[in-house]
Amino acid sequence: MTPATTRQVVLVARPEDVPRPEHFEIRQARVPDLAEGQLLVRNDYLSVDPAMRGWVSPVANYAEPVAIGQVLRSFAVGEVLASRHPDHQPGDVVMGMFGWTEHAVVDATTVWRTLTETDLPRSLSLGVLGLNGLTAWAGVHRVLRPRPGSTVVVSTAAGAVGSVVGQLAADLGARTVGIAGGPTKATRCVQEFGYDVGLDYRAPDFPDQLAEATPEGVDHYFDNTSGPVTDAVMARLAPHSSVLVCGTAAITSWDPWPTGPRTERIILTRRARIEGFLAFDHLDALPEAVTDLADKIRTGQLAHREHVLHGLDQAPGAIAMLYDGSNDGKLVIQLR
Amino acid sequence: MTPATTRQVVLVARPEDVPRPEHFEIRQARVPDLAEGQLLVRNDYLSVDPAMRGWVSPVANYAEPVAIGQVLRSFAVGEVLASRHPDHQPGDVVMGMFGWTEHAVVDATTVWRTLTETDLPRSLSLGVLGLNGLTAWAGVHRVLRPRPGSTVVVSTAAGAVGSVVGQLAADLGARTVGIAGGPTKATRCVQEFGYDVGLDYRAPDFPDQLAEATPEGVDHYFDNTSGPVTDAVMARLAPHSSVLVCGTAAITSWDPWPTGPRTERIILTRRARIEGFLAFDHLDALPEAVTDLADKIRTGQLAHREHVLHGLDQAPGAIAMLYDGSNDGKLVIQLR
Repeated sequence: MTPATTRQVVLVARPEDVPRPEHFEIRQARVPDLAEGQLLVRNDYLSVDPAMRGWVSPVANYAEPVAIGQVLRSFAVGEVLASRHPDHQPGDVVMGMFGWTEHAVVDATTVWRTLTETDLPRSLSLGVLGLNGLTAWAGVHRVLRPRPGSTVVVSTAAGAVGSVVGQLAADLGARTVGIAGGPTKATRCVQEFGYDVGLDYRAPDFPDQLAEATPEGVDHYFDNTSGPVTDAVMARLAPHSSVLVCGTAAITSWDPWPTGPRTERIILTRRARIEGFLAFDHLDALPEAVTDLADKIRTGQLAHREHVLHGLDQAPGAIAMLYDGSNDGKLVIQLR
Repeated sequence: MTPATTRQVVLVARPEDVPRPEHFEIRQARVPDLAEGQLLVRNDYLSVDPAMRGWVSPVANYAEPVAIGQVLRSFAVGEVLASRHPDHQPGDVVMGMFGWTEHAVVDATTVWRTLTETDLPRSLSLGVLGLNGLTAWAGVHRVLRPRPGSTVVVSTAAGAVGSVVGQLAADLGARTVGIAGGPTKATRCVQEFGYDVGLDYRAPDFPDQLAEATPEGVDHYFDNTSGPVTDAVMARLAPHSSVLVCGTAAITSWDPWPTGPRTERIILTRRARIEGFLAFDHLDALPEAVTDLADKIRTGQLAHREHVLHGLDQAPGAIAMLYDGSNDGKLVIQLR
């Protein structure tokens, strides 16, 4: 059952901005023997997340960069084929940081959780029931905490995180305004993800549309983009508003460091609070978040969307899709 | 005892950036009769505060702008000459929003407090025992809350607010780094206000000096300036750091709106919290702050410095002194 070799995606060049196919190579590697405390996992799905850009970036970040020659760090979900750790048995379905590889020999510490929602597709553990869901859930319930009637604005609102943010904020009684790229995604914000308003930031009069959609200002902003979208939202912040900075998807390069309108005067006069957010700081919320989100999926209260690529050969080009907007839901790579 | 007329400083033109003498006129005005609930105050000292720039600014701000033809809004301290309010008696010394006028007829609601620290100079109620002291006290104790051993950086560190921030943070066991304009003020940060390090932001190698002074990064930043000083400090933020935005003294004009390095990536990767601060939101802390700060003054634990101008004729040029750095301590205008 244990294969002798496996196929892996290895980092061969450090990208200066968005990782593209030329930064990776697919290699055949030997599957090592299990040491004490290790598992052999056969990955079913690999995750494609914006955070991976940071993991291969030369710019200082919150995680050690992946070294040249290493398998790309990533979330994955799959089945335990062999285990030398008492908490994990062959046949368990586990989700964790197993990397872009068909088979992974990993320490048990890389496991985030063993799936219990056996009635739901495994791939969801990489998205709405994984890092994306946790990000949205903790961002809404622990940081922004919108009150009923407040106005919540979300950038990349039709994306894997944003689509959940909007629905959770609406559940709390907030008025939600989703911002996405293009009319299709803007419409999807309203029709599929329940936003009160969906705005296309590529529209020439986007700032005016935003002003019209937020007549009393913006109480909470869940920011996945930085850039001009964020500048437009910042200008509309209401007194005592809060901003969660979760991603900077609109900035393709930080060298040279980009400039933008100074925010200090807005922060001061609105007494706004801006906060950096990393889901890894909220791992303790994962069980509660997964339980809550899975229940909402079962009862049809939580819409979500997946974009599935097929086979490891699709992986090297996948991260760039997150930045040109060509993915159409949470991006995963199905291996079997 | 009640004069028939009084001299006042009136706004006659709206400044686009820093208010200067040409925006004001000194006029003689009739002292009106007291209505029910009003007091006649003879001002002893007028305050000169950076906030006053906002009060006359055409840019949206947290307070209604002073209208053309009105007496300039300001803090002042003086003696009650006549009262039609039961809480105030002739002879009381009161501090409040009485404006740049020799005599003021005001509603009792404009009184911030009746002075009880009769052993200390009245003028202190406009600075270290007034808005400046409250700003520093609430900023340190309610917002930044530095832990022992953490690194606290303060801009305009030798100023009326910054000098108190540094001393209160040091009292809590923090390492304090003060940033001021010119070698004299940088030295004063250390010798007079007890900072561990004093830096002159005009030094050509200021960013290197800042890096050397904050080897483990910046845990808390009390920002009074915005601009290049703030950009240098932001680049040194430590994980889970916090920034209090209290003023933007380095920006002389917001039209056109100035640009600077984007902060979203720093906020995100450091999971920093940036918060706008207005002392007016913390008026409930005034009694506790004044008691604490007055005690520290009496026991010699809290250094403070005043710069006194003499006579109402000095007032129109006083606000600009805050922006060219020519004041040398909390700026007040003594009227008698």
